[in-house]
Amino acid sequence: MQFTSEERLDDGVLEREFTLGEIPGILWTPAPAPTSAPTSGPAPAPAPLILLGPPPLGLRRAYPRLLARARRSAADGFATATIELPGRGDRPRWPAAEQALADLRRAMEAGEPVGDEIIDALILPLVDKAVPEWQAALDALLSLPEIGGPVGYSGGVISIGTRLAVVEPRISAAVLFAGSFVPRAMFEEARQVTIPLHVLLQWDDEGNDRQAALDLFDAFGSKEKTLHANMGGHTGVPQFAGDAAARFFIRHLK
Amino acid sequence: MQFTSEERLDDGVLEREFTLGEIPGILWTPAPAPTSAPTSGPAPAPAPLILLGPPPLGLRRAYPRLLARARRSAADGFATATIELPGRGDRPRWPAAEQALADLRRAMEAGEPVGDEIIDALILPLVDKAVPEWQAALDALLSLPEIGGPVGYSGGVISIGTRLAVVEPRISAAVLFAGSFVPRAMFEEARQVTIPLHVLLQWDDEGNDRQAALDLFDAFGSKEKTLHANMGGHTGVPQFAGDAAARFFIRHLK
Repeated sequence: MQFTSEERLDDGVLEREFTLGEIPGILWTPAPAPTSAPTSGPAPAPAPLILLGPPPLGLRRAYPRLLARARRSAADGFATATIELPGRGDRPRWPAAEQALADLRRAMEAGEPVGDEIIDALILPLVDKAVPEWQAALDALLSLPEIGGPVGYSGGVISIGTRLAVVEPRISAAVLFAGSFVPRAMFEEARQVTIPLHVLLQWDDEGNDRQAALDLFDAFGSKEKTLHANMGGHTGVPQFAGDAAARFFIRHLK
Repeated sequence: MQFTSEERLDDGVLEREFTLGEIPGILWTPAPAPTSAPTSGPAPAPAPLILLGPPPLGLRRAYPRLLARARRSAADGFATATIELPGRGDRPRWPAAEQALADLRRAMEAGEPVGDEIIDALILPLVDKAVPEWQAALDALLSLPEIGGPVGYSGGVISIGTRLAVVEPRISAAVLFAGSFVPRAMFEEARQVTIPLHVLLQWDDEGNDRQAALDLFDAFGSKEKTLHANMGGHTGVPQFAGDAAARFFIRHLK
């Protein structure tokens, strides 16, 4: 993990871009507590970490929304980090993913239902590639002295969050955003999830398969799982819903 | 409205039983603010009111849970009140309701689906009788100097909450508990609801028609509506879900 830039934002949050091999990422850490003297006394306690799940749009286009979530989390005492998905941003495309994306667009433009084979081709290889990268990022992030556990996961591409919740024991709690396409195979994996979950669903998101989101919520094996459905369309998550997700992490990670 | 008993509870909440004609009810008002002198200075500001929706079990059996909600609301500065449903507690039964209840029990014991005609016979006359009583209670409660607006509604028998939200303009926001049987006719009324709603659904409540609850949530016409689904069975609403409902009222009534 190599830091490539460092900037102290106006609210004191430290934003650092990094690369992990070829993968670009961003790390935000909270401002030092105002009471701690800058040059003496014990080092501040390591901050618990929230992984900001991969933005399908790519880091650059999703940056304003990621930054808002990072600032909010920092105010609650959390470090946050994210990395670019395979095939997004400046990362190399691969032909099968491009084909699946083209098939998806064609089906949607034609007003046809998006078949299972398109969803599988679009999502399953992405999950298989991305999850080990997030685990490698977690190794690197947790080796920094300013970051500790426990670790939360918050974000999009619900299949990646689901797989991570199953295979990565360092993740203690997850906020998942319902709405992306979910391959049938993920429902089986969902049954193996046992960590506390907080699932956000935009009820009136027309591009969203609401029934699939409800079925996936039902499938999760977690004893504590909560679904918060709200109005406001795809990007209109209300402020109070963000507040509730923040409280979920405070309850489970602090 | 006649008060029939008055008790100051250990947390300072004033609990008063009353009758409104033949209907028994309970009113809880918050403890006076600690800074206000008892015999001088301006009277405390009237408390906003939350109606604690009618307990199908009857006031006496539901008392411990009602009291817990009243205490919690009082701590947030709200007065709360509830009245007995027609045909519950010591109130006179009526034959058609007894018949509908017997039909319901027979269907459930036989493991048969509960038909629309049973649900209609059970719920629709109850809504027709109860709603004007709640409006009369609201008249009486709002005439007390210690109670002001705005008014919220929180509670069970979701069809009564739905009808009240449509016909009673003094109710500004409602927390509804999904789970009771919903007559088909109520879906049409639900479309006319426009106040902010916060709907609680116990996802793993086996006695609950989950699909009907989701359909009813979908039908509500409110621009701000939120569904919180949680685990814990019929009576196991988690503490954090109660907290979220309390914050909804603080957001809308204060």
